[in-house]
Amino acid sequence: MRTGLLRRIERNWEQELEFLRGLVRRPSTLGNEAPVQRYIARELEEMGLKPDIWQIDPAEISRMPGYSPVEWPYESRPNVAATLRGSGGGRSLILNGHVDVVPATPEHHWTCDPWGAEISDGRMYGRGAADMKSGIAAMIYAVRAIKEEDIALEGDLTLETVIEEECTGNGTLSARARGYTADAAIIPEPFAQTALEAQVGVMWARVTVRGQGAHAERASGAVNAISKAYPMMEAVKELEAKANAAGRPAYFAGHEHPLNYNIGRIRGGDWTSSVPEECTFEVRIACYPGEDLKEVQRRFKRHLMERAREDSWLSENPPEIVFYAFQAEGCTVERSEPLFATLGEQHRSVTGKELQFYSFTGTTDIRFFNLYSGISATCYGPLGGNLHAPDEWVDLESVKSVTQVLALSIVEWCSSREPLSDEGT
Amino acid sequence: MRTGLLRRIERNWEQELEFLRGLVRRPSTLGNEAPVQRYIARELEEMGLKPDIWQIDPAEISRMPGYSPVEWPYESRPNVAATLRGSGGGRSLILNGHVDVVPATPEHHWTCDPWGAEISDGRMYGRGAADMKSGIAAMIYAVRAIKEEDIALEGDLTLETVIEEECTGNGTLSARARGYTADAAIIPEPFAQTALEAQVGVMWARVTVRGQGAHAERASGAVNAISKAYPMMEAVKELEAKANAAGRPAYFAGHEHPLNYNIGRIRGGDWTSSVPEECTFEVRIACYPGEDLKEVQRRFKRHLMERAREDSWLSENPPEIVFYAFQAEGCTVERSEPLFATLGEQHRSVTGKELQFYSFTGTTDIRFFNLYSGISATCYGPLGGNLHAPDEWVDLESVKSVTQVLALSIVEWCSSREPLSDEGT
Repeated sequence: MRTGLLRRIERNWEQELEFLRGLVRRPSTLGNEAPVQRYIARELEEMGLKPDIWQIDPAEISRMPGYSPVEWPYESRPNVAATLRGSGGGRSLILNGHVDVVPATPEHHWTCDPWGAEISDGRMYGRGAADMKSGIAAMIYAVRAIKEEDIALEGDLTLETVIEEECTGNGTLSARARGYTADAAIIPEPFAQTALEAQVGVMWARVTVRGQGAHAERASGAVNAISKAYPMMEAVKELEAKANAAGRPAYFAGHEHPLNYNIGRIRGGDWTSSVPEECTFEVRIACYPGEDLKEVQRRFKRHLMERAREDSWLSENPPEIVFYAFQAEGCTVERSEPLFATLGEQHRSVTGKELQFYSFTGTTDIRFFNLYSGISATCYGPLGGNLHAPDEWVDLESVKSVTQVLALSIVEWCSSREPLSDEGT
Repeated sequence: MRTGLLRRIERNWEQELEFLRGLVRRPSTLGNEAPVQRYIARELEEMGLKPDIWQIDPAEISRMPGYSPVEWPYESRPNVAATLRGSGGGRSLILNGHVDVVPATPEHHWTCDPWGAEISDGRMYGRGAADMKSGIAAMIYAVRAIKEEDIALEGDLTLETVIEEECTGNGTLSARARGYTADAAIIPEPFAQTALEAQVGVMWARVTVRGQGAHAERASGAVNAISKAYPMMEAVKELEAKANAAGRPAYFAGHEHPLNYNIGRIRGGDWTSSVPEECTFEVRIACYPGEDLKEVQRRFKRHLMERAREDSWLSENPPEIVFYAFQAEGCTVERSEPLFATLGEQHRSVTGKELQFYSFTGTTDIRFFNLYSGISATCYGPLGGNLHAPDEWVDLESVKSVTQVLALSIVEWCSSREPLSDEGT
C-alpha cells in the first residue's frame, strides 16, 4: 500500500503542479478569495468529495474565544470544507490550509510575475506559492492519492481551506463554529518540513496622530502629523527592544529577536501642498505564549502615551490607539502529542531524516485547535522563502515530499493498524 | 454710475451668496472639476455671455514655458472663459479664478460639512469657500452688475475659470495657449484685499525609498522602508533650514519662514504583518523669485543623496527622486504697474483704506501672465482663513467689498475716461 501510494503521488505530480499553478494564478488577497475557493471546491468535487461552502457569520464567531474584530464584510468570501468519512474505529484528522495571501505590491519589485506561478530551477515563484498554496496542493493531492489508491480510512478526514489566516484567523474559527472537529489537525504551512511546537502571539495596532493642517505656505507655523508620528514610531521601537531584552520561554531561546514590532503601514496627508492633518501607522505586535493580550495592549498604550507626554503637541493631542484584526494568543504543543509520533515516523520514512521541531515567531491557525477546541494541531509543510516579500518561492521537491508524508500520515493516523512500512504494501 | 453699480451689487448680494453656495457645494477636487465648471458656464450664459468650454491639450502646452508635467488625464476637466467685448479704445482686462480645491480629508476633522457652505457669524465655511470660490463669485458678480447697469466698456473684459491652480497651473497656461490676452489680469485669491507683488517658486518632489521586505516574524533581519524614509525626511528639513537661513529678497524680509519644505504625503507598506518594501513621501519645495528651478532641484537631489551615503542601506539603495506637477517659478510685479493705481484707487474708494502690498509664500497663477505673457497681473481677493485645512472660511463682508472694488476697477480700467468718483455717477 505504501509503495502504491507514493507511486500514485509521483504519477499525479504534474497534475498536482498544475493544480498549484491554478491556485497561485488566482490572486486571493483580502476580499478576493472567492475565485480560488471555487477552484478548490471544483477540485474536491472532481475527487468525489462534497464540498461545504459557507460564508463566515461574524455575529456567530464574535462570541468565541480567539475571535479577531474586523472592519470589513464577509460577503462573497467563502470558507470551504469537505469530509471523507471513515469506516469507523480510527482517529480523525483535519488538514487545514489558508487560501488568503498578503498583497504582492509593489509588484515592480518582483523579478517575475507575482501571479504567474513561474517555475525555475525547481522552485515555483509567486505570491502564496509558499504561504501557503503549495501546502494546500499537498494536502489535497495526498487525499487524492489515497482515494485513487482506494485506501479505506477508519477515522474521518476533513479538508478545510479557509480565509483570513493572514489577518484574523476568523476563517479557521468559523470552521470550528461550523462543527468540524477531529482528534488532531495539520496545517501545511511552509516551515521546511519541521513540526511546529510553539508560536508567538500577534496583534495589530493602529496609531493615529493628529496634526494641525494648513496651507504649505505657512507650514512652519502648523503641526505636521507625519513629523509627529515619528516619536510615536520610535516609542514602538523602544518597547520592542525592551520586550526582546526581557526573559523568554525556552522555545525561543535560540531566536536572536523573537518579538518583532513591525511598522507595516503608514498613511499621512493627502495633498503635497497641505500640511497633513493626520498620519496613521500600523504596528504588528508580538508576545510570548502565555502572555495576556490585554496586558500587552495596555503596556503598548501606556508606553506611547508616556512618550506623547514629552511632546507639547502630542501631550495635548495624544495619539488614538486602536487594536483591530489579529487578536492571536501565542501557543505551544507538547512533543508527547501522538500526532508528532505519526508525523515523525512518516517524515523519517520519506526523507530519511529525523523530524525537527520548530518555534515560529509568527502566528498560524493552529491556535484555534490547540487553545480553544481541544484538538492537537501542528504545522508541517514545504520549504519556501521570501514570504510576504517579492519573489516568494517554494521548493517543489519539498512539496512532493510533504504530499507523501501527509498521505502516509493520514493513512497511519486514521487507521487503527500499525504504522505503515514497506512490508505493509 | 458708481452709486448705481454699488447699489446693484448690494441688491444682487443674496443671489451672489447663493451662487457662491452652489460653487462650494460642488466638490471640485482634482479630476472632479466638471460639475462646477458647467455650473459657472450656465451662470455666464444666463448673464448673456458666450462661455468657451475647452479641454486642456497637454501636447499643446507642454512646449510652453511654465508647463508642469502631470501624471493624470485631462478628459472631462474643462476650462471655461467668456469675453465681454468692449466698444474699443479702453484697456483690456482678464479676471481669472481657479475652480479646483484641495482635498477636505480627513473630513471628520471639520466641525461642519466641508461641502455644506454653512454661514455663521458673517463667514461661509467650506473647502474652497476662500480658496477661491468666493473670488470667482466676486469677479462674476462684478461683471453681472456692470452688465445689469448697462455700463459700456471700451476695452475687452475676459472671465476665466480654470482648473489645476493647486497643482500645476496648467489651466491658466492653457488659457494663454487658447489666445486669451489683455493688458492686465486680476486673480481674486483670498489675500485679505491686499495686492500681490511677489510670490515664491514652488515644486513638488516625490521621494521613494526602498526597503527589503519580509514577513513581520523576521522583521529585525529585514529593512523597513518606512524607517529608512525618516533620515531622508530629516535631510529635507535640514535643507529647508539652510534655505531659510540664507539671504532673501526684500519682498520676504518680514516673513519669519518664507520657504516651506512641506512633507505633505507619505505612503508606505501595504500589510501590517509585512515589512514595507517601499515608502514614498512627497515634498512641496519653495524658492525665491529669480531662483532657477533646475538648480533648486539639483540642490535637493544632491543633499538627499549625500545623506543617503551616510546610511549603509541607503548608500547601496539610494532613494528615487522625481519632480512632478508644480514647476512654478517665483515672480514679482512692479508697484509702478498701472493696474495697482486702478486697484488702489478703487480699494480706497470702497474701504476708505490704502491698498497694502503682499508677498505670498505660496504660488498663484499670476506667474503665467507676468513671466510668460507680458500681461501685468496681481491678486486681489477676499479675507479668508484655514486654507488647505479643516474649517476653511471666508469673510462675507470682504467678498462683497471685493465684488465692488473689482466692478469699479473694471469700469475704470476698461474705459479711457478718468477714474470714477462719486461725482461721476
